[in-house]
Amino acid sequence: MDWSFESIVQHAAAEGVYDLGPGYLDPQLIPVPDIKAAFDEALSRYGAAALAYGHNQGALPFRAAVADRLADGDGTDYTPSHLLATGGTSQALDLLAAAVAEPGQAVVVESLTYDLALQIFRDRGLVVYAVERDSEGMLPSAVDQAAARARQERRGIAFVYLVPTFHNPTGSEMSQPRRTALLESAARHQMLVVEDDAYADLPLTPRTRQPSLAGLADFRGVVRLGTFSKSLAPGLRLGWLAAGPRLCRELAGRGLFTSGGCPSHLAALAVGLLLESGFYEDHLRWLHSELKCRRDALTDTLHNLLPGEWHLRPADGGLFSWVDIPAGVSEFDAVAAAEQGGVLTSPGERFGSDAEPGVRLSYAYNSPERLAAAAASLADAWRPLSAG
Amino acid sequence: MDWSFESIVQHAAAEGVYDLGPGYLDPQLIPVPDIKAAFDEALSRYGAAALAYGHNQGALPFRAAVADRLADGDGTDYTPSHLLATGGTSQALDLLAAAVAEPGQAVVVESLTYDLALQIFRDRGLVVYAVERDSEGMLPSAVDQAAARARQERRGIAFVYLVPTFHNPTGSEMSQPRRTALLESAARHQMLVVEDDAYADLPLTPRTRQPSLAGLADFRGVVRLGTFSKSLAPGLRLGWLAAGPRLCRELAGRGLFTSGGCPSHLAALAVGLLLESGFYEDHLRWLHSELKCRRDALTDTLHNLLPGEWHLRPADGGLFSWVDIPAGVSEFDAVAAAEQGGVLTSPGERFGSDAEPGVRLSYAYNSPERLAAAAASLADAWRPLSAG
Repeated sequence: MDWSFESIVQHAAAEGVYDLGPGYLDPQLIPVPDIKAAFDEALSRYGAAALAYGHNQGALPFRAAVADRLADGDGTDYTPSHLLATGGTSQALDLLAAAVAEPGQAVVVESLTYDLALQIFRDRGLVVYAVERDSEGMLPSAVDQAAARARQERRGIAFVYLVPTFHNPTGSEMSQPRRTALLESAARHQMLVVEDDAYADLPLTPRTRQPSLAGLADFRGVVRLGTFSKSLAPGLRLGWLAAGPRLCRELAGRGLFTSGGCPSHLAALAVGLLLESGFYEDHLRWLHSELKCRRDALTDTLHNLLPGEWHLRPADGGLFSWVDIPAGVSEFDAVAAAEQGGVLTSPGERFGSDAEPGVRLSYAYNSPERLAAAAASLADAWRPLSAG
Repeated sequence: MDWSFESIVQHAAAEGVYDLGPGYLDPQLIPVPDIKAAFDEALSRYGAAALAYGHNQGALPFRAAVADRLADGDGTDYTPSHLLATGGTSQALDLLAAAVAEPGQAVVVESLTYDLALQIFRDRGLVVYAVERDSEGMLPSAVDQAAARARQERRGIAFVYLVPTFHNPTGSEMSQPRRTALLESAARHQMLVVEDDAYADLPLTPRTRQPSLAGLADFRGVVRLGTFSKSLAPGLRLGWLAAGPRLCRELAGRGLFTSGGCPSHLAALAVGLLLESGFYEDHLRWLHSELKCRRDALTDTLHNLLPGEWHLRPADGGLFSWVDIPAGVSEFDAVAAAEQGGVLTSPGERFGSDAEPGVRLSYAYNSPERLAAAAASLADAWRPLSAG
């Protein structure tokens, strides 16, 4: 039987619309033949072991390859025992919300943050404390304020969740001094920090890479999350959690993992081979140039055409650009006008707040040509709003 | 780099020991080449769609194939909207414990039941009510007693969990009259029933198949769980949840699924092809004869050699045989004596209770020859205990 693309995937762009919504790669950017070869090789090389229940923390070849790569990037001593293979970031967040938090506890997040993290936390009965951020991300003083609020409400704090590198939705990046200050604040209040590094493999501008919070803290009080969904293929549903070996063992000891190991056992073995062979680094270099080309198509056009009061924030990596909306224009009006102009965008409100009124534009899901055209449509759609 | 089998899998049998512990297939019984071909075909046929985020409830080709198969077996109207693709039974149990239960609520289980379900429920803060069972499984009167206890303890009941077909750990099977009576009891108390049908595809004796609880109730108040871990390959980490369309949609609307769909997207597409092509039914026929041969090797030897006071229960399907231990012998002593004799077994206590003192023997993980030898060793090891 023939099945349409739509019958299989979560979301497909509507005909005749520029869809700047999806926070993941255009199917055109997924290296299908290479991933196919990797699954094939994993099944040939590991045979029945690739189809048996995997190790609770994840198959060793995968954890060893990820540990080597992270150690290279971070200058920290990652070993396989620092890693837990996960079914992507969302499964890791669900696990943390269940394992290190209790219903009714608070989770401290940036005033704009990954929308589905918010949903996962709320699904688990956690109370979201959205705190102040600036162009570098969460303010250290906001951690102090959250601690004060928690005392007042007699509520425990489960953890602090943030996206320090190429932030979703704004694209912002936290400097090293800010990272250090934030870690100091969190340590002072004995708050666990959950560092979502989903976009860390996607820098688009050559420059010194920021060390991870986990690396700076040597894992003390920090859990770091990574994924191959944003850099390789969403449908792998594969990521990792890096933390101190004791916490990794403890998480892997929950029934969900002792019942058969990582939910993405075979995918982990396949990706382990792509890491080991050097394919992943080559792929990232190619992907960076593809994404840069897309980002430039979108942002160059916006820079040229955007009405004066609208402000495009720089995006040095990740998948998103953020446009600040002028005072007097609502997010709702901006998104509605864009849609009238044939462009789908995501309002800040979707990410938990309208503290910084604006819209997120993904440049990962469309070709450069379409992005340039979408940008021109956006400028046309928004010009009358400013004039009004 | 070369990696050992042990570096990849959750458990490997120790040298020189007959390991009757694992409740899953011997790697020799996993059809690796056929599964490999299915992954290959899924990636060829669906391309990037197989590596994109999947539909929240699971890719339609998989759900359609499972629905057709279940409708054939059960005579009930399963459609794709009755199904949610899951990362195996354990992920489904974790999901249910989080989505339809609240911490502090009770879950009603049989006095002997799947050990990791107990752990998953406790991980989620649920209180386990272990209730009476007999050779057919949970007693309907036990449901009434659980309701009374819950009233007394002012505690809500989240759901009733049971394995009606080829029960883990005892191999028992619930008759149709008992199924009907149990459903009536649960309905009277408005308790949701979670039917774990992990072993339903493994009947070893030709006979009329029992209708599922979900089929009998037409999904009213019943959630049915299935998996391909026990019948195809554990490492696929793929199963399904069947329920009314509204509950399926509600479960698929949680952050964990809206963030990218089923955790086993590609595996679901591959297995969908194995269902569609007829491979799965052919494979089951072969697997049934292989498992029957193993069961017979174990149980024929035990029937001949087991000391008189020890009682082997009949196993008409699934992966397990159960031996009742005579009064005066503890499970601990039985398991220790077996281990001294080189055979690993699982005591009833592991499954939540010693209400029916006995040990579980898996016949799925060893060859017929090894199982016959293990059975002889068990009889030798246990004879002195009875004499003492």
